[in-house]
Amino acid sequence: MQKKQPLLITTGEPAGIGMDIVLILAAENKLQDFARPVWVTADAKAMQTRADELMAAGVLKSCPPWQTVDVNIEANNFLKHLSQQGADDNNAFILLNISCVAPVTSGLINISNSAMVAKQLEIAHKLANDKTVAAIVTGPLQKSALIEAGIKLPDGTMFSGHTEFFMQQSGCEKVVMMLANQVMKVALVTTHLALKDIPAAITADNVRQTVQIVVDDMREKFGLAQPRILVCGLNPHAGEGGHLGTEEIEIINPVLQEFISAGVDISEAMPADTLFTSRHLSNCDAVIAMYHDQGLPVLKSHGFGDTVNLTLGLPYIRTSVDHGTALDLAGRGGASATSLYQALIMANEMADRSIVDIPLA
Amino acid sequence: MQKKQPLLITTGEPAGIGMDIVLILAAENKLQDFARPVWVTADAKAMQTRADELMAAGVLKSCPPWQTVDVNIEANNFLKHLSQQGADDNNAFILLNISCVAPVTSGLINISNSAMVAKQLEIAHKLANDKTVAAIVTGPLQKSALIEAGIKLPDGTMFSGHTEFFMQQSGCEKVVMMLANQVMKVALVTTHLALKDIPAAITADNVRQTVQIVVDDMREKFGLAQPRILVCGLNPHAGEGGHLGTEEIEIINPVLQEFISAGVDISEAMPADTLFTSRHLSNCDAVIAMYHDQGLPVLKSHGFGDTVNLTLGLPYIRTSVDHGTALDLAGRGGASATSLYQALIMANEMADRSIVDIPLA
Repeated sequence: MQKKQPLLITTGEPAGIGMDIVLILAAENKLQDFARPVWVTADAKAMQTRADELMAAGVLKSCPPWQTVDVNIEANNFLKHLSQQGADDNNAFILLNISCVAPVTSGLINISNSAMVAKQLEIAHKLANDKTVAAIVTGPLQKSALIEAGIKLPDGTMFSGHTEFFMQQSGCEKVVMMLANQVMKVALVTTHLALKDIPAAITADNVRQTVQIVVDDMREKFGLAQPRILVCGLNPHAGEGGHLGTEEIEIINPVLQEFISAGVDISEAMPADTLFTSRHLSNCDAVIAMYHDQGLPVLKSHGFGDTVNLTLGLPYIRTSVDHGTALDLAGRGGASATSLYQALIMANEMADRSIVDIPLA
Repeated sequence: MQKKQPLLITTGEPAGIGMDIVLILAAENKLQDFARPVWVTADAKAMQTRADELMAAGVLKSCPPWQTVDVNIEANNFLKHLSQQGADDNNAFILLNISCVAPVTSGLINISNSAMVAKQLEIAHKLANDKTVAAIVTGPLQKSALIEAGIKLPDGTMFSGHTEFFMQQSGCEKVVMMLANQVMKVALVTTHLALKDIPAAITADNVRQTVQIVVDDMREKFGLAQPRILVCGLNPHAGEGGHLGTEEIEIINPVLQEFISAGVDISEAMPADTLFTSRHLSNCDAVIAMYHDQGLPVLKSHGFGDTVNLTLGLPYIRTSVDHGTALDLAGRGGASATSLYQALIMANEMADRSIVDIPLA
């Protein structure tokens, strides 16, 4: 059986646990769960050292099998480029080797290697954007290290995160953060804002763009022809008819009415403490919350560690682990690969359900 | 065995489902679950009519047994007053008769009867305040009807709800709304405020008073010598060291430090999406959230209809149903008595655990 398009994992910061969690899943034969090859961006030498460390620490019983290939990002046909190197699917994963300039020490960040972290993202974007890979699954990086190293975003401003990087590379004006687990999917209109700054960010444009991206991506990336979407109000009781705030009446509901008129299966603004009950959740595909602490505490309270972070609005599928580099655990054991595994499962499911055009190989 | 102090239910609006849900529990023998008499404020004639309607509708198979006594609120010794009327504990409940001036029609509010609703609250306050009853459990009233009827609060301002009524009767400056179910207890620093008005309400005084009331009531009404309390920040990620808002640093944490220094087992401000995970919830007795939609969606999402509303800070125990008058269901069937039952269970548990002084009968 020919495998489908690959899933690409970026291991991110080489001093962090990105490589550890890939190795753990590989050793548990979990990367072979998917009817897709798994590709991993990393430094080949550092990966071997990390595997040795984890074997010494008793985390791995034996070294999982992978195949290393060199990366030529300029290759017009990346698959051909790989096949010329003899890449095959008989291993747990294919390691796309991106060399670090300085030696990698587990747990100790060397900002000389920050350019290699950025290079992983660049390659991931290219391979996802030209549909060589079906999805990107990002491991953790250390934002402060990239900033200290002077790594810039494509627009020349200082590096500020995976999401901004992929957004600018793709020429997207707006993306939407969604968190998902087995119980619910929650997209946010605003993300990391002080509470006092939220009301000003709830504009008709922002609500409209968020809803449009969620609707489009639930159709295109989750394969739902008519996604059912519920939307929280900004205020408690969704403003209670204007007695507890007017944003629902003046901003949110008029925008939602545009979508309802256009035939989208979406609610008007609902009280959050009504929406997040099983009666409503069981009849909806995605929830849109107006801000971080309205949507994420309830999602994570049902999460049991399996929460996946998705970026909607990009021209490709991107999921992410929901943890950081955990420098103190790198190479030593103790890192949990659950989040990476869930992010892979989600990316794989989305890739299977996606109706985005798949190019000929 | 002598029964303990009674639980008092106010049925509230006579046209609503308050009496229906009492009758349903009585018919299911659930009011007899408690080692306490259950007293119910209602109009005796309306209660009989409601029971007849529910039997005709097939909701009740037979009329549950209750005993009606007249209420003399001026009686110095209410128990003696009742015993002079021959009250005994051989029935599902004792009905404290408060007459309506106009006939009661199920589902149809007559504001001539709003004074009778207020009278129920007045009697409930008196009996709880002088410790004749162990707790008040309030059924639903229709706020708009009391306002239309010109019912005033004790301070002469317009009626605005059960909580304000009991607060003023008790001379309390501040009370705290807590919602509770089997999974968690959540108290709120602010309740029904538009989102934009929340930051200004997060003052040191407000946080301090809220925490003090929660600590005191967890000790006195829940019988926990050293309650373990977790507190949410106002901002996402609890402000992330000042990057996402400064209220945690400037207002919330300094107040929490006062309590920590005084030996209270309380956290500093925590990210809400960390706090509401089982790891933390399983090690705490109560959560304090800064606002409605930070705390209640997560609580109700785990509630399965058994959420109870508590008022902390009053000199007595008060729990409440979490639903309205459901006028369309009164006398017809379809009303669920689950919330009233849960409110009774909570009131009974609190009364058993309460360390508030019990006077001699």
